[in-house]
Amino acid sequence: MPGSSFGSLFKITTFGESHGVGLGVVIDGVPPKLPLDTQDIQIELDRRRPGQSSVTTPRNEADQVEILSGVFEGLTTGAPIALVIYNKNQQSKDYTTIKDVFRPGHADFTFHHKYGIRDYRGGGRSSGRETVSRVAAGAIAKKVLCKLGISVRSYTKSVGAISAQTVDFDEIERNIVRCPDPIAAVKMVELIEAARDDGDSVGGIIETIISGSPIGLGDPVFDKLDARLAHAMLSIGTTKGIEFGDGFAATLKRGSENNDAFTVSKQKISTETNHAGGILGGISTGDDIVFRVAIKPASSISKSQSTVSTQNIVQNIEVHGRHDPCICPRAVPVIEAMAAMTLLDCWLIQQTVSSGRNLFE
Amino acid sequence: MPGSSFGSLFKITTFGESHGVGLGVVIDGVPPKLPLDTQDIQIELDRRRPGQSSVTTPRNEADQVEILSGVFEGLTTGAPIALVIYNKNQQSKDYTTIKDVFRPGHADFTFHHKYGIRDYRGGGRSSGRETVSRVAAGAIAKKVLCKLGISVRSYTKSVGAISAQTVDFDEIERNIVRCPDPIAAVKMVELIEAARDDGDSVGGIIETIISGSPIGLGDPVFDKLDARLAHAMLSIGTTKGIEFGDGFAATLKRGSENNDAFTVSKQKISTETNHAGGILGGISTGDDIVFRVAIKPASSISKSQSTVSTQNIVQNIEVHGRHDPCICPRAVPVIEAMAAMTLLDCWLIQQTVSSGRNLFE
Amino acid sequence: MPGSSFGSLFKITTFGESHGVGLGVVIDGVPPKLPLDTQDIQIELDRRRPGQSSVTTPRNEADQVEILSGVFEGLTTGAPIALVIYNKNQQSKDYTTIKDVFRPGHADFTFHHKYGIRDYRGGGRSSGRETVSRVAAGAIAKKVLCKLGISVRSYTKSVGAISAQTVDFDEIERNIVRCPDPIAAVKMVELIEAARDDGDSVGGIIETIISGSPIGLGDPVFDKLDARLAHAMLSIGTTKGIEFGDGFAATLKRGSENNDAFTVSKQKISTETNHAGGILGGISTGDDIVFRVAIKPASSISKSQSTVSTQNIVQNIEVHGRHDPCICPRAVPVIEAMAAMTLLDCWLIQQTVSSGRNLFE
Amino acid sequence: MPGSSFGSLFKITTFGESHGVGLGVVIDGVPPKLPLDTQDIQIELDRRRPGQSSVTTPRNEADQVEILSGVFEGLTTGAPIALVIYNKNQQSKDYTTIKDVFRPGHADFTFHHKYGIRDYRGGGRSSGRETVSRVAAGAIAKKVLCKLGISVRSYTKSVGAISAQTVDFDEIERNIVRCPDPIAAVKMVELIEAARDDGDSVGGIIETIISGSPIGLGDPVFDKLDARLAHAMLSIGTTKGIEFGDGFAATLKRGSENNDAFTVSKQKISTETNHAGGILGGISTGDDIVFRVAIKPASSISKSQSTVSTQNIVQNIEVHGRHDPCICPRAVPVIEAMAAMTLLDCWLIQQTVSSGRNLFE
Repeated sequence: MPGSSFGSLFKITTFGESHGVGLGVVIDGVPPKLPLDTQDIQIELDRRRPGQSSVTTPRNEADQVEILSGVFEGLTTGAPIALVIYNKNQQSKDYTTIKDVFRPGHADFTFHHKYGIRDYRGGGRSSGRETVSRVAAGAIAKKVLCKLGISVRSYTKSVGAISAQTVDFDEIERNIVRCPDPIAAVKMVELIEAARDDGDSVGGIIETIISGSPIGLGDPVFDKLDARLAHAMLSIGTTKGIEFGDGFAATLKRGSENNDAFTVSKQKISTETNHAGGILGGISTGDDIVFRVAIKPASSISKSQSTVSTQNIVQNIEVHGRHDPCICPRAVPVIEAMAAMTLLDCWLIQQTVSSGRNLFE
Repeated sequence: MPGSSFGSLFKITTFGESHGVGLGVVIDGVPPKLPLDTQDIQIELDRRRPGQSSVTTPRNEADQVEILSGVFEGLTTGAPIALVIYNKNQQSKDYTTIKDVFRPGHADFTFHHKYGIRDYRGGGRSSGRETVSRVAAGAIAKKVLCKLGISVRSYTKSVGAISAQTVDFDEIERNIVRCPDPIAAVKMVELIEAARDDGDSVGGIIETIISGSPIGLGDPVFDKLDARLAHAMLSIGTTKGIEFGDGFAATLKRGSENNDAFTVSKQKISTETNHAGGILGGISTGDDIVFRVAIKPASSISKSQSTVSTQNIVQNIEVHGRHDPCICPRAVPVIEAMAAMTLLDCWLIQQTVSSGRNLFE
Repeated sequence: MPGSSFGSLFKITTFGESHGVGLGVVIDGVPPKLPLDTQDIQIELDRRRPGQSSVTTPRNEADQVEILSGVFEGLTTGAPIALVIYNKNQQSKDYTTIKDVFRPGHADFTFHHKYGIRDYRGGGRSSGRETVSRVAAGAIAKKVLCKLGISVRSYTKSVGAISAQTVDFDEIERNIVRCPDPIAAVKMVELIEAARDDGDSVGGIIETIISGSPIGLGDPVFDKLDARLAHAMLSIGTTKGIEFGDGFAATLKRGSENNDAFTVSKQKISTETNHAGGILGGISTGDDIVFRVAIKPASSISKSQSTVSTQNIVQNIEVHGRHDPCICPRAVPVIEAMAAMTLLDCWLIQQTVSSGRNLFE
Repeated sequence: MPGSSFGSLFKITTFGESHGVGLGVVIDGVPPKLPLDTQDIQIELDRRRPGQSSVTTPRNEADQVEILSGVFEGLTTGAPIALVIYNKNQQSKDYTTIKDVFRPGHADFTFHHKYGIRDYRGGGRSSGRETVSRVAAGAIAKKVLCKLGISVRSYTKSVGAISAQTVDFDEIERNIVRCPDPIAAVKMVELIEAARDDGDSVGGIIETIISGSPIGLGDPVFDKLDARLAHAMLSIGTTKGIEFGDGFAATLKRGSENNDAFTVSKQKISTETNHAGGILGGISTGDDIVFRVAIKPASSISKSQSTVSTQNIVQNIEVHGRHDPCICPRAVPVIEAMAAMTLLDCWLIQQTVSSGRNLFE
């Protein structure tokens, strides 16, 4: 309940601060006999790492993962897998400017009042750097889902007012904003660079499409699949909203337009449209699961802002340093990781339903 | 994990089907010595009950609550409180039309495939009627929050394209759509009635404002206050999205526009604006907590729709019966209930942080 | 966490007080399509009911169970099953003698100080009557286990210094102490009746043998099968200890005597002896799971005892009424119920391990 | 649920194998502002470390702990604390003798069948070495309890048939069996050394006394304090039973002998005797909490034993290496750690009850 764990049968517990000794995660419930080495994890961490392009922070951290437990002779054993990413250069910086000042848009103020103490270096526990643990754990979930034929793909749908007009999954990793529309991608880069040059930042929307999900994932009532995904996504620091299928736009439609008619194709029941986003009554329909997450413009900007010190003195602050002018490109693998872990957890839970049901059929 | 429980320290477990014997909830973790009688709960149930106006279902169910445990001589004892609402007239209807057919937009199809069996009467466990248990439990949470000076107020922000232009809390209960703008309310009623007359339905947006929250509620990382609220809201069957503060609109802004500058007023730190919606880093700022939930147009419509039977036969269906042409008016108390329980749970968790912290200050 | 729930995938939440409106339980996670009617549950409740013999309380309560949800056309649906046992004659008694006095051996004192309030009628929430909910839920678990070929049998192993010398399962229900040795049973009855006639009570030991368990139930580290069973058993109010296999007697042996040598019989690995009680490293071996639970002499006795009032006045108390002079006979079905639910929960968890493992084998 | 976590508000998650890279623990829910450095933890690890005396394994592991997170400038921050103990010399040994053979009394057999794979080196995840993580986390819990005036003291009560006749807490750390009776300690050492010289092992009983607990810890019904302690203790690999207060001996008594009469002393209510072991109805009475845990004779013995290979071949095994001939001395700090974490968790939970209750008193 103190909040550093996520999931039930595939369960992660993260730890670490932005500028402490290191960050990491313990993953409990990984299926046994899964082939796993550090490279499986590193490939996802590299998608999230800073310094990867002109639209991310120029900070250069290698974020090398080490496996401390749970893998034996190249296979998982069912025991918890602990992963650590040690921080390099952790004491390289002078934090006097933010030590006694609450940065607008950050958790400094709320942390300070909740706990009476905070590790102010780079945001400490509330830094976006915490998500490195999630991406590491998510890499394992994705590997299991791959075996199940389930793919989780996220991409930058919009930056500011610029939206992708086409979705070509192959384009996503070909441009630095991770946009599935190469033409929109060029404009997005321009917009981000302009904000960066102004000492400012921009927001955007990340869309996720999960394909290959079986029918039946998610539980009715409180642990609906969409409820769990919403929990997962809003637990990422930079998010401000989520919508499934047609989402908020559905509020403008009539029921007769929004309901997805069932039909039969190749002896299987499916729907002609997918306004619902692949979930009905909290349970997956077997169709693509589709949702969008709102990413706020990054709070760390070098423009001067008005704020208050821990001593209640109003003053100006300029948050210098090397920040992301747009969080979307690096948030894509974080969202994929959280979605993958949520799906896998639901799949494991559903195995208990199926097993019980098999007894009486 | 089977999904019928919500919360951790203020924890509810619901049961019951739309047309079964009854519905109910067990609430564990209610503070002792709270004065409580059925009327405290009934008042909220009456706000949710069917048949209350021309824009809700004309079904007339009294939804009388009974307290089975946990209250002694008018006070709560700390023991779990069980509440039951018995169904009246439960076998009054002929369900042959929906017994073997999957209604579009409903959970019939996914339930059937998940469990291999379903109580098809009125949607069974996946009926919106399940929320009667939530409203009953939420009434208790609201009573505790009231003592803490925290108010939770939800209202219909928009129906279709018609939005409230003003927010006067006193207006909410004065009109049948629960809109805080009496002029918009009139238009909303017209829109709903027009849809109803077409055998169709409309969607809308419900906004919630929580006032009086102390600083410090919500946990960093996975159990952020917004993550928990998102989980709570998306667990309501009819919702398709949630956004906090400026939400999706924030994706169109720059960081310098979206960050809320801190200031000092009456020796207390606060923010000049509230784009964030009262939550920073997953923890309440002390400002109003603001979020909006997208409500889809009701799936039950009498218009003819194309669908499929359990035998994979394509056919038409007309879902007759007495349905809500717009769910918003009756969803308002449900959203308030879920928000209230989430807040109270976070408050209880925060007491353990405070108590621990007090030891070393 | 408030403590009225037990289990994870087969999860129960109980409610109710000894002399309130009623007691009950919500069971979430019951496999779908299990045939179930009230009689399946009633048969176990009747084994626990008061007034069944000369060695139990002469109180005569029928304890009729009602099913409120989760069963449709005679089959479970996967939805939570709520059961209620309404109390009859709930206000028939005068409680002035115990209202302001703490009965020795009971929870009156600790409840009063924990919550600042208590339902003093018959012990309220801390009454042994609370176990009626457990037995009701356990009846369902036993029915599922039966399908899995797993049997859970408990019996009175000793009363005071009189121990069963033989174990014949068929004898258990043939005598009123539920002892598998008919000769010892006669002596046990005499001992209990002698205590009763003195206004006193006696304790005993209940042994449980679970047969047919597959290999692999229970999780390593914190949720060992024995740890979970110990939790389950010590959660029954009247228990003071538990031991597995040779238990405390193993502390007097050497390792070479206590280790169970593995052998091969009919191409299957088993052990020649079962000192361990069917569990190694917290995981079931496939052999009989064996444990014993210490039952204290009932705290409710009519003999005069020295005690203290809520006003800190020392005084004498005679707890009249109709009490069990020995709790063992009626605790047997309670222990079976808790053991059955624990086993089933572990079996469900193990299905997720097996399902995950099957992906990579 | 996969079983590597313990506790709810003070919650630990452990990882690591006996001969892997390292072992460790993440502790979530530590109160903020607690002064903490590695020495606070090391002092407890040193009590558990191998090679400390002639009656423990002569293996010499330093077990140096490192803090990876959650401590800033010497104080805890409320963020999760990750601790790691790296294994030295992890590949120094030849495991061919146990790789394909199931050691009697160990988890080799059950692990192998549960997961289909196991890290056989030194027992892997099921090694007693896993408890190093518990002791590390427990050291933090003890430091918090110390501030609350609660002490947790465990000691070797008996080894084989030799029992302590006196209890002098100051003697415990003065002898190598951690016995509070120095005369018995000498005989215990002799007994252990004799077993060791025979290539055998002996068992014993560890008693724990928790002093200074407030009234009110523990929850009624399923999460009784004794149920939670039983869960905690039986989760330690080597334990076979637990009893509270008079425990199994209470089954030989009458209620009038076993009930603890209440009395008033210095205006406070207490009991004249403590047969109950400081817990009534699952809730602490304020008196000493007393329980005893049965420790089996160590399963690792060098005497020849009959066993079976993974290929179902019966054969003999001699488990050479450096083993503990009696686990009691090193289990004492493990039991203290588990008891301390359980108590602290209950204390934190009780703060939420008190806080809620204060609202209405």
